[in-house]
Amino acid sequence: MKHPEKQNSKRTPVEEIGRINLIDKLLSLSGGLFAESVEIKESENFHIISCHKLLLEGIDFNLIYNPLKHLGYKSALSVFGPLYAAGCVPANLSVNLGLSGRFCVEDIEELWAGVAAAITEHNIGSVSLDVQSSVTGMAISLSSQGKQPKEIFVQTPKAVSGDLICVTGNLGAAYMGLQLLEREKLLFEKNSTQQPQLKGYEYILKSYLSPELNSSVLSLFRENSVFPSGGIFITDGLAGAVRRLCRKSSLGARLYLEKIPVASQTFKMAEELNIEATTAVLNGGDDFRLLYTIPLSKHEILSKEVPSLDIIGHLTPEGTGCWLITPDGSQIGLKAQGWSE
Amino acid sequence: MKHPEKQNSKRTPVEEIGRINLIDKLLSLSGGLFAESVEIKESENFHIISCHKLLLEGIDFNLIYNPLKHLGYKSALSVFGPLYAAGCVPANLSVNLGLSGRFCVEDIEELWAGVAAAITEHNIGSVSLDVQSSVTGMAISLSSQGKQPKEIFVQTPKAVSGDLICVTGNLGAAYMGLQLLEREKLLFEKNSTQQPQLKGYEYILKSYLSPELNSSVLSLFRENSVFPSGGIFITDGLAGAVRRLCRKSSLGARLYLEKIPVASQTFKMAEELNIEATTAVLNGGDDFRLLYTIPLSKHEILSKEVPSLDIIGHLTPEGTGCWLITPDGSQIGLKAQGWSE
Repeated sequence: MKHPEKQNSKRTPVEEIGRINLIDKLLSLSGGLFAESVEIKESENFHIISCHKLLLEGIDFNLIYNPLKHLGYKSALSVFGPLYAAGCVPANLSVNLGLSGRFCVEDIEELWAGVAAAITEHNIGSVSLDVQSSVTGMAISLSSQGKQPKEIFVQTPKAVSGDLICVTGNLGAAYMGLQLLEREKLLFEKNSTQQPQLKGYEYILKSYLSPELNSSVLSLFRENSVFPSGGIFITDGLAGAVRRLCRKSSLGARLYLEKIPVASQTFKMAEELNIEATTAVLNGGDDFRLLYTIPLSKHEILSKEVPSLDIIGHLTPEGTGCWLITPDGSQIGLKAQGWSE
Repeated sequence: MKHPEKQNSKRTPVEEIGRINLIDKLLSLSGGLFAESVEIKESENFHIISCHKLLLEGIDFNLIYNPLKHLGYKSALSVFGPLYAAGCVPANLSVNLGLSGRFCVEDIEELWAGVAAAITEHNIGSVSLDVQSSVTGMAISLSSQGKQPKEIFVQTPKAVSGDLICVTGNLGAAYMGLQLLEREKLLFEKNSTQQPQLKGYEYILKSYLSPELNSSVLSLFRENSVFPSGGIFITDGLAGAVRRLCRKSSLGARLYLEKIPVASQTFKMAEELNIEATTAVLNGGDDFRLLYTIPLSKHEILSKEVPSLDIIGHLTPEGTGCWLITPDGSQIGLKAQGWSE
């Protein structure tokens, strides 16, 4: 566990190569076109949706344990996620970096390598980048626009009671990865000769540091004429996501605890740290899962054709609230935590 | 000259009313629709262009002299400007605020009042807002998407040597306003009983603190079938803007000093501070003017129908460089300053 800025042997100040040259160099690595604005051509028959995020050092990430490359990758996914959730395919990406003097060219290249990986993976056609000074720390601002084919938005049904609530993978792992990193950071601060104990927890660490975004479900939906009635990108726990979704549609929800997928390392770490795994699932952050509500009539086709999707509950009538049902039948009210609501 | 946060008598912590409630309250003031994403409907026959900015306290603004309401207004214009320059009409706006604990609800309301004024003035249809914590200071991230009618982008000519270079108003005033504020701040820091001397400089102060964006030229262009071959939003001086433009089109440029409009207060302040007014024009920031290149054939119609536009020079062949010609015929090479290039 080292400060990532100390890993590179060469440390070139941004002033040495110049801001515009740096931007050109980075954009050439990712096939970028515009430094000032991004553009969507051929927008006929498409609905455009835009997503915009601001990530701040010390709040949204900690450079003690977020490697810059992973951070760049994850930052890009954080704006692609809400677009996929809305049934859109991301078409472009604009990144603005605010960097204090402690960051050098090699750091920015490292961060950009992660962004570029996400760009390639998600077939982003147009990319823009700007780099500016900040007084302290790093700020990453991202904006992405996605296209939704007209045939999707005209066929999107209204969310109704009975719609299935589905997620693209297990929950709580990223939160447990973060808890592990925090624990090892504290131990390292007390005794810097002690190496972090991360073995056996690769999966939850990866879930936090470099999550995957399973956007392939969107093509499966299209192939099978499945039109979700709603969608949300889970970044601050399942509870907050379901509450936001219910708030939008003015409906309630019931989730079934035994249906919610949880990885074995999540359970193991929860036990080791004496945390309820359910807390990680409901209120942990950074899961980067897509949650969709889908008409009940599609139940069979979903189970057969989209096996990577887990059905974890359903929508309920207006005014019934948002609940988690445990295997013994007791009901726990879903609450979002702290500053997030 | 007071810290704006100290101006309000009531200071409500964000936690007291809650983040989501605050966002709802602010969005209801500006007719906002989505808290997570912004959407462009009816995108048929439109080209979508996106603009994205990150403004950081201590770098892009200073709360000692940037009143929050003006800051909000100006921040919104900073993303609308590049869209108008690209021949687009802004359609939506997304704002993400990062705020340290020193900002209260009343501060955010003040800032938002300025954003809301810009939204109303520029007929923005869809607005989103997010508010999050920051470790120190204020970060304002903005993203706006604009529509360009198809008839414009199919008729946009290629920039060629001979195209006229035109600006929507006088230059250098905002820079001089900032110099005045900086001078008064220094005096105030030495002696806090001394009130700032700002009288007689209202125009340059307003140019810096709350600039106007003259987007009405776009409708005049359309009415008169004028299709600019290029456009740029001047925010860091005329020199940098013209160089960026020439870089894009691979052409050179000649500007004529006596053709560049400069306000009398700009000259007066420049004299008082012993600065060349030309420096303010070429390298001063925050002018918020639109610069267009327009085919020479439109010279007559521009002079007659778009009198608010000043023709200050023309494009020249590739490889000829960017020059400012003084009344005595000497040539000064245009250079962008410092961190900006």
